[in-house]
Amino acid sequence: MTRIHAQVNPASMQAEAFNAAMWERVLAEAGEGVVATHSTDPAAFDAALAEAEALFLVGPAALHDLPRRAPRLRWISYSSAGVEWLLKAGLPGSVTLTNASGTHIPKAAEYSLAAVLMLNNFIPALVTAQRAHRWAPRSGGTVAGKTVLILGMGALGGAAAEALAAQGMVVLGNSQSGRPHPSVTEMSQGDGFRAQLPRADFLIIALPLTPATNGLVGQAELDLLPPHAGVVNIGRGEILDAAALAVKLRDSTLGGAVLDALPREPLPADSPLWDTPNLIITPHCGLYDPGAYAERCLRAFLANLGRFRRGEALHQVVGLDRGY
Amino acid sequence: MTRIHAQVNPASMQAEAFNAAMWERVLAEAGEGVVATHSTDPAAFDAALAEAEALFLVGPAALHDLPRRAPRLRWISYSSAGVEWLLKAGLPGSVTLTNASGTHIPKAAEYSLAAVLMLNNFIPALVTAQRAHRWAPRSGGTVAGKTVLILGMGALGGAAAEALAAQGMVVLGNSQSGRPHPSVTEMSQGDGFRAQLPRADFLIIALPLTPATNGLVGQAELDLLPPHAGVVNIGRGEILDAAALAVKLRDSTLGGAVLDALPREPLPADSPLWDTPNLIITPHCGLYDPGAYAERCLRAFLANLGRFRRGEALHQVVGLDRGY
Repeated sequence: MTRIHAQVNPASMQAEAFNAAMWERVLAEAGEGVVATHSTDPAAFDAALAEAEALFLVGPAALHDLPRRAPRLRWISYSSAGVEWLLKAGLPGSVTLTNASGTHIPKAAEYSLAAVLMLNNFIPALVTAQRAHRWAPRSGGTVAGKTVLILGMGALGGAAAEALAAQGMVVLGNSQSGRPHPSVTEMSQGDGFRAQLPRADFLIIALPLTPATNGLVGQAELDLLPPHAGVVNIGRGEILDAAALAVKLRDSTLGGAVLDALPREPLPADSPLWDTPNLIITPHCGLYDPGAYAERCLRAFLANLGRFRRGEALHQVVGLDRGY
Repeated sequence: MTRIHAQVNPASMQAEAFNAAMWERVLAEAGEGVVATHSTDPAAFDAALAEAEALFLVGPAALHDLPRRAPRLRWISYSSAGVEWLLKAGLPGSVTLTNASGTHIPKAAEYSLAAVLMLNNFIPALVTAQRAHRWAPRSGGTVAGKTVLILGMGALGGAAAEALAAQGMVVLGNSQSGRPHPSVTEMSQGDGFRAQLPRADFLIIALPLTPATNGLVGQAELDLLPPHAGVVNIGRGEILDAAALAVKLRDSTLGGAVLDALPREPLPADSPLWDTPNLIITPHCGLYDPGAYAERCLRAFLANLGRFRRGEALHQVVGLDRGY
């Protein structure tokens, strides 16, 4: 008998998609010997933890003091890619953490393409002019032959690289490993991205949040970009110094920006970012595909559940030391 | 001896690109027997007309009373695709009109793709929310499998069809002839587009302005679209009833719109369109690629000039009766 529990935070944007009906429908395929429960009630979490061997989490949950509260727990599967808040909670060494890395791929590719095409077509600047009722045409060439630098070549960065290379762009990449990618003409490793910044017409941040990436793209890095460059953040808000970016957008030493990840989420109504010229904000929704996401995510969980029960190594395991 | 003259309207967005230096550089390749002049001064136009056999026009020029003012004129080459103002001037039957149809192709493809991806990713709605400092996430699936209807399958519409089919979209098309296109799964002819509207997740207007297309997409046609649909206009402003569109955007019976062609250009500062929710305005600049356009356009003119001097049929001829 394997006891697994899905705890869904009702405030999560994904809560509706990961509803009890879908959970039961997919988990029914796990076959004999699995008891699967589902709750959106935080008050029910402690009772479920007391029994569960595996947890499926949608949105944040209270994970303090797990060794005492969840003595049988060996696996937490998180329904998104960004697990920094989970790692902060300090998981016991006996618990394996998996995430939904890769589940966002088709939407990440489309959003990255949309963001770069918007920047190339001056949409942030034109939207700023529209607010002021100003007829101020801006035209330029197509993206073909222009250069995009992608920081972070995981599932999201790789999907973006493929979509942008298909438009005839020169794709530069950066990752910890520097491992080659078929759509990337030049990979750099670690700090090597700084030497690539001056050549980037567009910069895409697709990194996970770790101690090493926190604040990685600050004013010094933004100053290395050419003044016409556009910036996209599909990683985490903490990686990019948004205040430094805003100054450069205001004084036109950067061309424009499209941010899906913000320094605080939800962004407070009094944040000066809302009114920053040449900046388009998408409130952390650009990579999410509600119709396909939950299904794809639960299928991956089901496959991992089979491995878990057979005692095999899980897929999509998060390295607790590296943080992704 | 063939006398040709380029008259550049200094108020045209293309005036800078079609400068005298480029004109002379390209026309030098025409070889012996061609006298080519260039002017940005409207006062010099009459003297040039008195001699010219061929005119290259950038932006509007005074074309009244041509038989008297330009007795030798047999050909006008216009540097853009939209020639409705020229046809209004009433050209003599002895003058052949050619345009730059097709010169916009790569940029038209990119702009159409950008506009559809923006609509699919709720960018007009998110920009409206951003103005109000509202964190209001909107998410949906990728464009793959969704349906786009393209009105007008000339050079622009064809380029858009190809770019969107490459993203896995179902492309429906409409034209006067109904001629099949390799990227279009279903072509309709004439009024047949009305039966296609209810299936369109996105509508792209890529028609020339003619008596038949003037006001073609009004409230009745917009009402046939599903309420989530997005509308793009890369044709001419007069084809679409923008006031009816604005009402539907305000009451959310349409999803969003991206307009490059407006009912009046420049759009007056007091137009209510500027503040219409879920609408992004690009001021007739989306299809223009200043670096590549003038060069490509003058090369096509040079090729036509060879045909003209050899007495062969010109390419890119505008049908005076059909208007494109």
